[in-house]
Amino acid sequence: MNPRPATASARSVDEYRDIVAALLAHLAGRPDEQVPVPGALGRTLSADVVSPIDLPVFRNSAMDGYAVRAADVAVTPVELPVTGVIAAGKAGAETLPDGAAMKVMTGAPLPPGADCVVPVEDVQAGADRILVERGRARGEFVREAGTDVRVGALVARAGTVLAPRHIAALAAVGLPTVPVLTRLRAVCLTTGDELRPAGSELAPGQIYNSNGIALAAALRADGVEVADIAHSTDDAAEFTAVLRAAVASADLVFTSGGVSKGDFEVVKDVLAPLGGTFGPVAVQPGGPQGYTVVDGVPVLSFPGNPVSTMVSYAVFARPAVRALAGLPAPEATETTLLTPVRSPAGKRQYLRGLRTGDGVEVISGPGSHLIAGMAWADVLVDVPAEVTSLAVGAPVRILSL
Amino acid sequence: MNPRPATASARSVDEYRDIVAALLAHLAGRPDEQVPVPGALGRTLSADVVSPIDLPVFRNSAMDGYAVRAADVAVTPVELPVTGVIAAGKAGAETLPDGAAMKVMTGAPLPPGADCVVPVEDVQAGADRILVERGRARGEFVREAGTDVRVGALVARAGTVLAPRHIAALAAVGLPTVPVLTRLRAVCLTTGDELRPAGSELAPGQIYNSNGIALAAALRADGVEVADIAHSTDDAAEFTAVLRAAVASADLVFTSGGVSKGDFEVVKDVLAPLGGTFGPVAVQPGGPQGYTVVDGVPVLSFPGNPVSTMVSYAVFARPAVRALAGLPAPEATETTLLTPVRSPAGKRQYLRGLRTGDGVEVISGPGSHLIAGMAWADVLVDVPAEVTSLAVGAPVRILSL
Repeated sequence: MNPRPATASARSVDEYRDIVAALLAHLAGRPDEQVPVPGALGRTLSADVVSPIDLPVFRNSAMDGYAVRAADVAVTPVELPVTGVIAAGKAGAETLPDGAAMKVMTGAPLPPGADCVVPVEDVQAGADRILVERGRARGEFVREAGTDVRVGALVARAGTVLAPRHIAALAAVGLPTVPVLTRLRAVCLTTGDELRPAGSELAPGQIYNSNGIALAAALRADGVEVADIAHSTDDAAEFTAVLRAAVASADLVFTSGGVSKGDFEVVKDVLAPLGGTFGPVAVQPGGPQGYTVVDGVPVLSFPGNPVSTMVSYAVFARPAVRALAGLPAPEATETTLLTPVRSPAGKRQYLRGLRTGDGVEVISGPGSHLIAGMAWADVLVDVPAEVTSLAVGAPVRILSL
Repeated sequence: MNPRPATASARSVDEYRDIVAALLAHLAGRPDEQVPVPGALGRTLSADVVSPIDLPVFRNSAMDGYAVRAADVAVTPVELPVTGVIAAGKAGAETLPDGAAMKVMTGAPLPPGADCVVPVEDVQAGADRILVERGRARGEFVREAGTDVRVGALVARAGTVLAPRHIAALAAVGLPTVPVLTRLRAVCLTTGDELRPAGSELAPGQIYNSNGIALAAALRADGVEVADIAHSTDDAAEFTAVLRAAVASADLVFTSGGVSKGDFEVVKDVLAPLGGTFGPVAVQPGGPQGYTVVDGVPVLSFPGNPVSTMVSYAVFARPAVRALAGLPAPEATETTLLTPVRSPAGKRQYLRGLRTGDGVEVISGPGSHLIAGMAWADVLVDVPAEVTSLAVGAPVRILSL
């Protein structure tokens, strides 16, 4: 009999998260990219953006009405001749004569000499004269150039995740493109002879191939471009070829499966000789973890149980991935436990939970295969490694999914 | 002198929002569509989805280890012959002989007869025999078929906005597609001779054309597919042609500009004879509003000031648009005002605000041209029509942007 294989001492969750963050750190140095403003929704500005123009571009009318000198309408009613009409888009270079009015549309340039606008509601209009019934003070209904934003002033800060209101401002100052953080390109690579594509008939022992689809969805929700969802059987040559293609087209590769203690662990078998580090993390689910740098590209190897894959991503990779996308860290808060919990000693456990008004209920069991159950969870309940049981009412940390 | 035009009595914000909702109500009856699960992130399920299979599909091992009968390992240490190896993906049809073990990989089918799994860590393995050092009870490390989800059981409910965890579950049960609400198709149509595309030189009196880009971003953020961002000058024939094309390709058309009291109001001039209703709403910004049904397609006409366009969308259209996309209503809460406010009598005012820990500060002025200022706001501060001033500390309703 051979002795049992020596168990490598397990890393803590925090240690492993830091290892993953360090592995991805160089990706912060990618060059940014210019994208058209209309397509920039949800992207993260990589630099401060300043206005190339004054806004308003020119002094203009806030109302449909008559541009006048305030002094000429100080006493009302007063009749004034109308010496012109200025539509929006017209130059408005002609000076307003003393004691006269020019008709102006909202947004049209004010004629030089005019210092206020009398709204159309406050006059009786004739063919070429108006009777002003209510005067206006200097500046009323006049929008001065640059009062919204000055040329060179900040329109949006580096790090802003662009919402419609930012797009509106960037478009208003006439910018065709803006600099944004380049999306990480990732490939998700599932392994396993037993995996079959959605919609196919399953032979005995087969299951549907879901981890790549699920991980891709999680990555996309965190601002990552998923270049491919690939698959390999447990054949080492096939896996090597698929992995090489993945590494050639991505900044970051995720594998699922093939990292445990079985006889057919293709991911570990291929990547360990390439310098990969495989070993246990003191966590449940998601204990067996591996990481490798292949041709300069980080490859994170998650275990193949569906819940393990998703929890591994959420706990180890998501903080770094979101930071690289310029997105806020996953929300982690404290709440009250509404379900009693037992947990193995020495392993930090992430249970699936559902927030209610009063706290968090643990739903679904701890099993790493309960992926359908996970659909009903909106948080992970974080049970520290040293804790073996928690009663109803205990404070617990929850991590938003 | 002609008398002033009679002012139509202004509608209230609530009345006009209801009119818009009624105008869009028929769009709730659009047929849903089937989309591939990997592309369904963020879409809204149009029907309950049930599992076509049991999950786990078959009774399988939760560990890499040895499938045994619990009775055979009740007393340890005990030596057992290993009569086979079952990898994941293999059928596992061979029955486990009494007093024997079969090696099983995580996820592999349990052989008939086996009722627990001894993890690889708990045995010393020889060439064809194992020494079991710790026994296991019936059912330990066995995942029974259907314990995650049963065939026919609910995987996700109608109305669910699909997050990665739902995608994971839908993929795990092998569904190639899911039924989702069809996205609304909208066209945004800006009008105005003075509008120029981003990046061009502005002649005197010209400004950048931003409302279509801004409105499209707001619509996309609310789950709408923007089929086109179109533009027309103030020429009625051109506007008519662009409008007809828009109506032919969309469920819903938005116009901006051309609805006020000026001499060149192309939107009103073309649409009023087609049955459009144009008139004031007692709101600031965004007072002049219009709606028309052209060839069965609702056309909402917003005023052309950039802030007016965005606030009109947020206040009048967004609730209905989000409801049609199956998205939650825009968040409206109450908070404390941190800036004193003055407001015109008889008009509900929406000021741009920024939430802080203590309440909401009004930022930027009330002017409907202050679009760059709006970029710094994350809420609209809702000042009721009858209110003319609010002091610091007053409770105010805020609407999330």
